Amino acid sequence: MSGWLAIAGLGPGDEALITPEVTAALAGASDVIGYIPYVARIVPRAGLTLHPSNNRVELDRAAHALELAAQGRRVVVVSSGDPGVFAMAAAVFEALEAGPAHWRDLDIRVLAGITAMLAASARAGAPLGHDFCAINLSDNLKPWVLIEKRLRLAAEADFAMAFYNPRSKARPEGFERVLELLREVCGSDRPILFARAVSTPDEQLRILPLGQARANMADMRTMVIVGSSLTRIIECAAGPIFYTPRSALGSAS
Amino acid sequence: MSGWLAIAGLGPGDEALITPEVTAALAGASDVIGYIPYVARIVPRAGLTLHPSNNRVELDRAAHALELAAQGRRVVVVSSGDPGVFAMAAAVFEALEAGPAHWRDLDIRVLAGITAMLAASARAGAPLGHDFCAINLSDNLKPWVLIEKRLRLAAEADFAMAFYNPRSKARPEGFERVLELLREVCGSDRPILFARAVSTPDEQLRILPLGQARANMADMRTMVIVGSSLTRIIECAAGPIFYTPRSALGSAS
Repeated sequence: MSGWLAIAGLGPGDEALITPEVTAALAGASDVIGYIPYVARIVPRAGLTLHPSNNRVELDRAAHALELAAQGRRVVVVSSGDPGVFAMAAAVFEALEAGPAHWRDLDIRVLAGITAMLAASARAGAPLGHDFCAINLSDNLKPWVLIEKRLRLAAEADFAMAFYNPRSKARPEGFERVLELLREVCGSDRPILFARAVSTPDEQLRILPLGQARANMADMRTMVIVGSSLTRIIECAAGPIFYTPRSALGSAS
Repeated sequence: MSGWLAIAGLGPGDEALITPEVTAALAGASDVIGYIPYVARIVPRAGLTLHPSNNRVELDRAAHALELAAQGRRVVVVSSGDPGVFAMAAAVFEALEAGPAHWRDLDIRVLAGITAMLAASARAGAPLGHDFCAINLSDNLKPWVLIEKRLRLAAEADFAMAFYNPRSKARPEGFERVLELLREVCGSDRPILFARAVSTPDEQLRILPLGQARANMADMRTMVIVGSSLTRIIECAAGPIFYTPRSALGSAS
């Protein structure tokens, strides 16, 4: 029997946002591995072993998945969103690179998913409709000075900015410093979106000027998007639409 | 009868990459509007009117879609990839903003899809596994000087960079200048991915150092991703894996 490993994106929460490609991989799997709340989304069935694990053990989880595939199991590592964006795909490749040579013969596939920034963008309008960047604000794996440097350069480039992991209990002050820096370089009127638990029953969207943004508006389930200088708001009956026009022909360069 | 408008992403080409949310919207539609090759992907059926249109008429197409929804039709505007990333969602909101006030009462939804950079990233490994930016290289809607400024700042920020619309027949020299600039600021050894027609039978992936990249390796169906200083390659039996590790703790800042 020949094993394989798929690293699959479950999207932001709604089952209607999981691609048929991912659904088919899960249907053919013998083992599903991942962070506890993501594995909890998989319906148990005969012949399928679920391996939920804690956060912050990504490399151990990745090595476990590779080892099971090497033993001939059909393994799906589940991520929320897209596995290639601040998620499990890079962790699996780090483990692969550091691991035994025979792992490099394995059948490994990454199966794309709807990443949080695109789910949030769709719900709010189209803030990422022109050039943009995506920055992980967690400083677990990155020095603060690099985060600050990237924020300043991204603002100078006039990118819209999507922020993953804006705020955690372990470092509540970091996001406050990010908001201060953004107000300094983008101005207090620049619109910011807080999109919490998008596509789930807990979904909350909030669009406001940077001057009114507070760090406690974000938590671990919140995606934050700051507009570029061109991003604007259309007031509609169903709520505000937050979008960036396609053209920058009139913009300062 | 109450009309609605959904702006839906068909993903990069493979039907297995279309979300069930989009499939359900198409099943309930009375009208599908979009660029000819995207509308050609929709299976005709009784009760469904297809409205294919040429490229570069995005605003006319958007206004047509809004007007049909205002008349009570159930309208899906189809984009490839994700409608919120260099695609039809921003065009619809531009038309909405410029249009009659009653359009602001319409039921308008954006339905996310798998955008080209994430499909390409998944096929090649995980080059966007750390901070990154997305830049549309078309200078139809943006002055060249702004493209160049963004490229220099993105390189200074050490983002991985995903490029949409790298090269067209109308401006073959633009992408050559982009490659020259990237070699100057990132060095000739930095890896670059050319991912053509991802998820279709014509799919071609090519990963090479910037020093060996040539403008004619990209066409209108090609997504280009340039790694950050940390992006690397693992040689595997099935081909090279192109990925960016999650940690930048050791990187120069």
